Amino acid sequence: MFQVLPLDKEKLEQIQEKIDLKTKPKGALGELESLALQLALITGIEKIELKQPVMLVFAGDHGIADRGVSIAPSEVTGQMVLNFLSGGAAINCFCKANRLSMEVIDAGIKSEIAHPQLISQALGAGTKDFSVEKAMTLELVDKGLSLGAQIVYQKADQGSNVFAFGEMGIGNTSSASALLSAFTGMPATESVGCGTGINQQAYNKKVALIEQALELHKKEFADIRTTLAALGGFEILQITGGMLAAAERGSVILVDGFIASIAAMAAIRIDENVRDYMVFCHQSEEKAHKALLANIQAKPLLDLGLRLGEGTGAALAMPLLRAAECFYNDMASFESAGVTAV
Amino acid sequence: MFQVLPLDKEKLEQIQEKIDLKTKPKGALGELESLALQLALITGIEKIELKQPVMLVFAGDHGIADRGVSIAPSEVTGQMVLNFLSGGAAINCFCKANRLSMEVIDAGIKSEIAHPQLISQALGAGTKDFSVEKAMTLELVDKGLSLGAQIVYQKADQGSNVFAFGEMGIGNTSSASALLSAFTGMPATESVGCGTGINQQAYNKKVALIEQALELHKKEFADIRTTLAALGGFEILQITGGMLAAAERGSVILVDGFIASIAAMAAIRIDENVRDYMVFCHQSEEKAHKALLANIQAKPLLDLGLRLGEGTGAALAMPLLRAAECFYNDMASFESAGVTAV
Repeated sequence: MFQVLPLDKEKLEQIQEKIDLKTKPKGALGELESLALQLALITGIEKIELKQPVMLVFAGDHGIADRGVSIAPSEVTGQMVLNFLSGGAAINCFCKANRLSMEVIDAGIKSEIAHPQLISQALGAGTKDFSVEKAMTLELVDKGLSLGAQIVYQKADQGSNVFAFGEMGIGNTSSASALLSAFTGMPATESVGCGTGINQQAYNKKVALIEQALELHKKEFADIRTTLAALGGFEILQITGGMLAAAERGSVILVDGFIASIAAMAAIRIDENVRDYMVFCHQSEEKAHKALLANIQAKPLLDLGLRLGEGTGAALAMPLLRAAECFYNDMASFESAGVTAV
Repeated sequence: MFQVLPLDKEKLEQIQEKIDLKTKPKGALGELESLALQLALITGIEKIELKQPVMLVFAGDHGIADRGVSIAPSEVTGQMVLNFLSGGAAINCFCKANRLSMEVIDAGIKSEIAHPQLISQALGAGTKDFSVEKAMTLELVDKGLSLGAQIVYQKADQGSNVFAFGEMGIGNTSSASALLSAFTGMPATESVGCGTGINQQAYNKKVALIEQALELHKKEFADIRTTLAALGGFEILQITGGMLAAAERGSVILVDGFIASIAAMAAIRIDENVRDYMVFCHQSEEKAHKALLANIQAKPLLDLGLRLGEGTGAALAMPLLRAAECFYNDMASFESAGVTAV
């Protein structure tokens, strides 16, 4: 379905040499050096070029939300989509401050919203409650991957080569935790966290429901698509497809928090080459995010105690990519600056 | 000498309430919320205003550098100053990428540099070797604090209210480690690190020289000014004065890595109110930086494995301040956005 080329690791040495000739002790820019290395490998050895970075915020509702696993009711998904569209949410502020354009995509929410700026590609009015039945059909899985890819292809055709993925969906940490357990065998007591802030009682219920779902659907877990059908979310699916498409087009993928990271894990399980294109932007407060990132050998750039989603951590990391671009492209070498090499 | 007012902590509740009404779960923006709280307290409760942020890079040479405690000879200080002035260093790239203006100040380097953009306020051609004598006189301590303040007053008069402090000075981690030991009683084996990358042999020598200096000057450590005279550096002194002046003017202080943090510690020991105005930007790789920050109850925003100085960590943190400014000023409240409060 997707043709993702691995990056040409043979060029690593040449890029590292260019970085090592800059007027600074070797390695003194720490993780910005690894970042520059990756960005040069993706976008160009001579010059890193980050073009028209775009934040794609996918929204979807979840059947499981009716079971009281969240601090907010499903209607908040639609309300927040309107908030995104009128520019009032945290992600709007951070995209504006850090110069990312932003698109809001209805991947399958319950509310019916007609708004000229909303990209409507809903897979349905929320998923089914995965604690009692499959979240969606296999056909919807394929359709979701394809629709998520489509918007990325459009933006890539218009010149973007940096794609950040955000999400909104009441109940989506439940889907993400269930997927994490299904993908890795991690028990629900470890994969489930407090989302945006549930209490102990709601937490226990969330764990019990996910344990029930894992037992109910365990026959599906041998295959990535059937796992996604059993436990996935419409926004998670479309993000997974979007990430695969971004990698296919040789673009940089900015991975946000827990939900976006489970989409990243799904994308890697579909095609491991996609991992090469991913920049892991931040460590969220959600309990299992650390274990999830460790599982895919990812070390995030920021650790600011965020637990909001929306793509906020990815938008906040964008200036670090620009800093890597800038030092790689413009910093003087020892020779050009007449500085004694160290 | 400096009149620093404490911030009005009684306003904290009012600011927190404003943050809590934003369309996000309480606390979901993590450290950005604490940052917004501090910035609002410093610059204004109604609206955070970060005006004309400026990076002041102070350069100074160190007598101790002749003893082989660094990977580079003292002449590199002057070479790097020229690199700053011609725009080729890492700090130039990061200031450009993150929209800080930048000034380069000769606080006391060995090289004689005539350049129209260099602000010359040298306290001498490098300090004396503090392993055998006092680094400078008490008169130079006072002059240094005052000269560092002067450039801040100028910039504040021109409208800046965000001051970042960077430094360059071969040998200055030695001075910073010695000061840290003198200020806190920490043994040299803990306060001394590898700077920008010395080997084990040079490290052992550095520890021995600093132990010797601590023994030689221990009578001076009862007083902050005499401690600075014994072990300080010209750039460290001027940064200390600059930080005190910035706080006096009610401005935000961006604290960079190990060297800038020892200047911050000195400033706090001169007037503890200055701590209220400081944003700790990053955790450097230099060994004792973590202990230093813990000592002044500082939790840094970034942890990127940097060990370069120049102000690079402070420049990289600037977008996080702008993100805090943006969400505090512009994000919708639950009421204004019509979102069910959580």
